[in-house]
Amino acid sequence: MTKITSSEWALASRPVGMPNLSDFEMRKTDVPAPADGEIQVRNSWMSVDPYMRGRMYDRESYVPPFQIGETLQGGSVGTVVASAHPDFSEGDLVSSMAGWREAWTAAPASVGATKMPKTGLPDSALLGVAGMPGLTAYAGLLRVAGLKEGDTVFVSGAAGAVGSTVVQIAKIRNCTVIGSAGGADKCALVRELGADHVIDYKKHDSYDSLVGALKAAAPKGIDVYFDNVGGDHLQAAIEVARPIARFAVCGMISQYNATEPVPGPYNMIQVVGKQLSIRGFIVSSHVDMQPQFLKDMSDWIQSGKMKFEETVMEGIETAPEAFLGLFQGRNTGKMLVKLG
Amino acid sequence: MTKITSSEWALASRPVGMPNLSDFEMRKTDVPAPADGEIQVRNSWMSVDPYMRGRMYDRESYVPPFQIGETLQGGSVGTVVASAHPDFSEGDLVSSMAGWREAWTAAPASVGATKMPKTGLPDSALLGVAGMPGLTAYAGLLRVAGLKEGDTVFVSGAAGAVGSTVVQIAKIRNCTVIGSAGGADKCALVRELGADHVIDYKKHDSYDSLVGALKAAAPKGIDVYFDNVGGDHLQAAIEVARPIARFAVCGMISQYNATEPVPGPYNMIQVVGKQLSIRGFIVSSHVDMQPQFLKDMSDWIQSGKMKFEETVMEGIETAPEAFLGLFQGRNTGKMLVKLG
Repeated sequence: MTKITSSEWALASRPVGMPNLSDFEMRKTDVPAPADGEIQVRNSWMSVDPYMRGRMYDRESYVPPFQIGETLQGGSVGTVVASAHPDFSEGDLVSSMAGWREAWTAAPASVGATKMPKTGLPDSALLGVAGMPGLTAYAGLLRVAGLKEGDTVFVSGAAGAVGSTVVQIAKIRNCTVIGSAGGADKCALVRELGADHVIDYKKHDSYDSLVGALKAAAPKGIDVYFDNVGGDHLQAAIEVARPIARFAVCGMISQYNATEPVPGPYNMIQVVGKQLSIRGFIVSSHVDMQPQFLKDMSDWIQSGKMKFEETVMEGIETAPEAFLGLFQGRNTGKMLVKLG
Repeated sequence: MTKITSSEWALASRPVGMPNLSDFEMRKTDVPAPADGEIQVRNSWMSVDPYMRGRMYDRESYVPPFQIGETLQGGSVGTVVASAHPDFSEGDLVSSMAGWREAWTAAPASVGATKMPKTGLPDSALLGVAGMPGLTAYAGLLRVAGLKEGDTVFVSGAAGAVGSTVVQIAKIRNCTVIGSAGGADKCALVRELGADHVIDYKKHDSYDSLVGALKAAAPKGIDVYFDNVGGDHLQAAIEVARPIARFAVCGMISQYNATEPVPGPYNMIQVVGKQLSIRGFIVSSHVDMQPQFLKDMSDWIQSGKMKFEETVMEGIETAPEAFLGLFQGRNTGKMLVKLG
């Protein structure tokens, strides 16, 4: 049990609009040997996720805002290198919210650390398809949107960590799937994952063009919309929705860096006549689904029904760049930073 | 059994924006003695409702559009004056969609006519508190919004036929109620119906002012919003919503006469973080609740827990004026036309 050194990232300033590298600052800290009840962990992977942008605003929300000068938080996996906690042993794999750093010492509960069972999956999958983004797709589609066999499902951000999982779960449930993504490479991936129709939104730079593409893909309309982006996509989904369609609203990445209020869909009135259900959700309200999710997901991965893509940046110093990449469309599948 | 004469209203032209009296034309027709399977009915009351504006557009919707030159339709109650149908007798009270006319002869099913039980209520109540608007309030609040005891409920259009019923059902269920209405007289009524807080939206002509009034009335936020008006009210409700608040979206009267697309709420992104559920509905999807609704409503009216207000225009010739009055805020409670 020895002191180790960790590089870690703090917020240097609150971003205005699109964040800049200068909004982050890296520093080295000593990570002490664990006191009684603590564990010392070396992270092997950390996650960057779009929702983190919301925590950079100083406002009340479902998670408290990041504080200037404090080390950022986020999903990570790592290995216990020293333990003074009865439930953890050297070599255990742990998942925690102590990301944005190479190593840490803390009482497990204080950083949401849990010991991970052997799944046969690569560790990185615990931050993606078998982790929070995977559960987000699973809970959003199956519970929030109440997916039924045969539904026509539209998902935006379909090449992302959540969206690519949504595409595949919907196909496993025998649905017709329309995925939207930006650029030829991402669209090729979405098709490879099984989507019946793929819309390259970069080829549709007006709302009218986007809604035309969606109508062509779903001439009878859509039953479910899984929203990762908001904006024109949400409006197009309302326009093309069948009566009693269900929307699971997971995120609106198109607006996370907006500096002015963004108008909502211009066709909200259709919510009445079509009897639409638009439900926002956050994954932490659905952790009760975790055991069934892990079982289903392991089965699907092992039987080849579920594939997952990762975009990996190397080293703690790349973390802010990886995060910014989320808003620049640089990731296909889960964006991750490999540590150590 | 004799032929009688009826004055009735047809659409002369499709309104653009706010309808004009010149968009309607009245004519006299002969109402023949009933053929086999038909009944002949003299209407005593007809209803005008905001949703009818939607049927004046030539577009696909949940009810087919009115056709130019055809007699308009809408809720009415009347008395059978001659019957050639085994289930109907002279003197029976019937509720039907054959409004906008003084009398009619038809097969009952073709105009949605049903024989009404003796309720002890005035006939006009069957078009309001004990009719479609009442069921709209009941189904929207209890099923769509999933009202729970102790909820803080915000309802717009609170002096209208639906809204005034929402206020009272929510109070019967021990909720805190905030109602919004336009003008001192309407606000006085809403308070008299039991609302804990009343917002006169005419005193709040900016969004910021409206949201300020709502925050003052609901410092801890709202659990349920029953939307009759859309626009700024919907945005203010999102702003003030507590986590997992439920919105029943019944109508958006502020937009029915819009000639340009109207932007949706500028704070839609809060739907995610607050995990809001925004559900549109139309009453015809909830007719299975009718028996329980009628039982509850009769009990509430007889025990004095449910009051209802009517604004009555006299004579078939006033029907278009009554309809236009809905968009001019001329009704308190249910707007009705008394016939014959």
